[in-house]
Amino acid sequence: MERLRDLDEAGVLQRVLPLYGAAGPAVAVGPGDDAAVIATPSGSVVATTDGMVRGRDWRDEWSSGHDVGVKVAVQNIADVAAVGAVPTGLLVALVADPALEVAWARDLAAGIAEAARDAGAAVVGGDLSSGPPGVVVVTVTALGDLQGREPVLRSGARPGDVVAVCGSLGHSGGGLALLLRSGPSALEWAGAGLVRYHLAPRPPWESGPLAAAAGASALVDVSDGLATDLGHIARASGVRVDLDGTVLREELAAGPLTEALGAQEAWNQVLTGGEEHSLVACFPAGTDVRALPGERWRVIGRVAEAGPDGPVVTVDGAVTHARGWDHFTPP
Amino acid sequence: MERLRDLDEAGVLQRVLPLYGAAGPAVAVGPGDDAAVIATPSGSVVATTDGMVRGRDWRDEWSSGHDVGVKVAVQNIADVAAVGAVPTGLLVALVADPALEVAWARDLAAGIAEAARDAGAAVVGGDLSSGPPGVVVVTVTALGDLQGREPVLRSGARPGDVVAVCGSLGHSGGGLALLLRSGPSALEWAGAGLVRYHLAPRPPWESGPLAAAAGASALVDVSDGLATDLGHIARASGVRVDLDGTVLREELAAGPLTEALGAQEAWNQVLTGGEEHSLVACFPAGTDVRALPGERWRVIGRVAEAGPDGPVVTVDGAVTHARGWDHFTPP
Repeated sequence: MERLRDLDEAGVLQRVLPLYGAAGPAVAVGPGDDAAVIATPSGSVVATTDGMVRGRDWRDEWSSGHDVGVKVAVQNIADVAAVGAVPTGLLVALVADPALEVAWARDLAAGIAEAARDAGAAVVGGDLSSGPPGVVVVTVTALGDLQGREPVLRSGARPGDVVAVCGSLGHSGGGLALLLRSGPSALEWAGAGLVRYHLAPRPPWESGPLAAAAGASALVDVSDGLATDLGHIARASGVRVDLDGTVLREELAAGPLTEALGAQEAWNQVLTGGEEHSLVACFPAGTDVRALPGERWRVIGRVAEAGPDGPVVTVDGAVTHARGWDHFTPP
Repeated sequence: MERLRDLDEAGVLQRVLPLYGAAGPAVAVGPGDDAAVIATPSGSVVATTDGMVRGRDWRDEWSSGHDVGVKVAVQNIADVAAVGAVPTGLLVALVADPALEVAWARDLAAGIAEAARDAGAAVVGGDLSSGPPGVVVVTVTALGDLQGREPVLRSGARPGDVVAVCGSLGHSGGGLALLLRSGPSALEWAGAGLVRYHLAPRPPWESGPLAAAAGASALVDVSDGLATDLGHIARASGVRVDLDGTVLREELAAGPLTEALGAQEAWNQVLTGGEEHSLVACFPAGTDVRALPGERWRVIGRVAEAGPDGPVVTVDGAVTHARGWDHFTPP
């Protein structure tokens, strides 16, 4: 079995770079020089970075290299979409134990390439470093273009706005719960769809720029959990976000999530499940979100003036203290 | 002693983000939203990524968090300069054992901030993840602007060009050799300047865009060692690079390097020492490199047609097989 240490850096790159394919018209200089050069026709560039760590963000028993590649790319692509931009380029930094199998690194690259292609972005550069025994860290930076629009930030929500979600909620967290309970055999059961979503999510990121074009006032992707991420919007905008528990239960917790986990845990995952990367946006009152192009948006609540409780998130009128994922204070 | 695990992510960010200071006019959206937005007035963005790993790229006995911050920022800034661009923004991804001291993370941020300020760039975003016991990985992405110029690549060298270097050679490698021999006590000896340069280099990156403006045909920073990096230019350009051993000995190996290491090892470090991040450029014949603004350039050789040996690097007429650093095939 070929391992990274059996090759030199050039040898590893020779096996990995072809998987990233052609660069596309926006890429003036791709991998291989000191830095890449990407066109930014609208006069600004969107940039974000996010990484995954073996044993923390994935387990080799559950995730293939391809899964990890898709997921780390998607996390970054979703962040670009969550300010209303379209992704243009990705940079990939891999730190790996030299004992890592070359096949795994190729699989990782294939997953990143697949997600990038799907999003219309090119892999434009990267870095390869050796790490301590057992360590694999993949850090991706995504670049994006606003196509002439203003970025849609967390701070733009206004009282009266409707709150809507595009994509699923709780599927990634539900899949993780099933994996923690049953290991990879969970892939053969009722919750297989949730597990697959946890391993290699495919949120509707195309809807980020579409929401921006339709006048969204605030936008995030669900990284830490619906309640936590809407809490970010509430605080940044100085507003209260009132969620409708009935809609969340009937339209988002029902179906595969409740079938696999039961009603109580499904509900918990809808409110707190992270790594979903679906989009949550606020739109000015009167926006008909059902008329938006692309994937369906569901109205799940409304923005109000911050009351005596401050900039909080409520569900059916009660302040929620539901907490999502925190890297340094695991649940 | 406060450690990362004593805080939540927000608490860590609260202690670190203020160190990065104000964002500057090019930054439309800084840290705190899903992604940053940076102005790109000349219609393209330069991007590069490079990381450092505890125990591989630094040792805590030798390097402070501040040193690591300066060095990882400088590596990226030098890559931006090495295509002829000026740095505009940095993104910082930190993967750390939750037992890491908060003071170290703050020190790291202070070092990154210092190098960024010095280069006129802002820290615009980042990511914070927990890692396995003992692991600390810092990955920086640097963005840059070409100010309307074309990028200067490795592939532009032409027969007849002069080859010139701006900054020192071998100081970082020499400093590392002293540390490996004597540990931190090396900082009290003759080679202290080399050791300091190894820990926190300050190459003349401002000369990258100046060289581009002056018509440089090819440009790199010395990351892997002079011979290896000029080998990249030779292969990418399909040329031979002929170096003048006398100039290299008299102008670059002499002085502190020879005093600390002796003539033989000084010479070896000049040819193969990595992580120097000085700039090496090719300029069209007739360019008076001594007239260039900024830090002094020294002519160290000339570009020739590739002969029977192919696109190689020679020193005083003999093909050099000197090899620099390779992450997966350490010397």
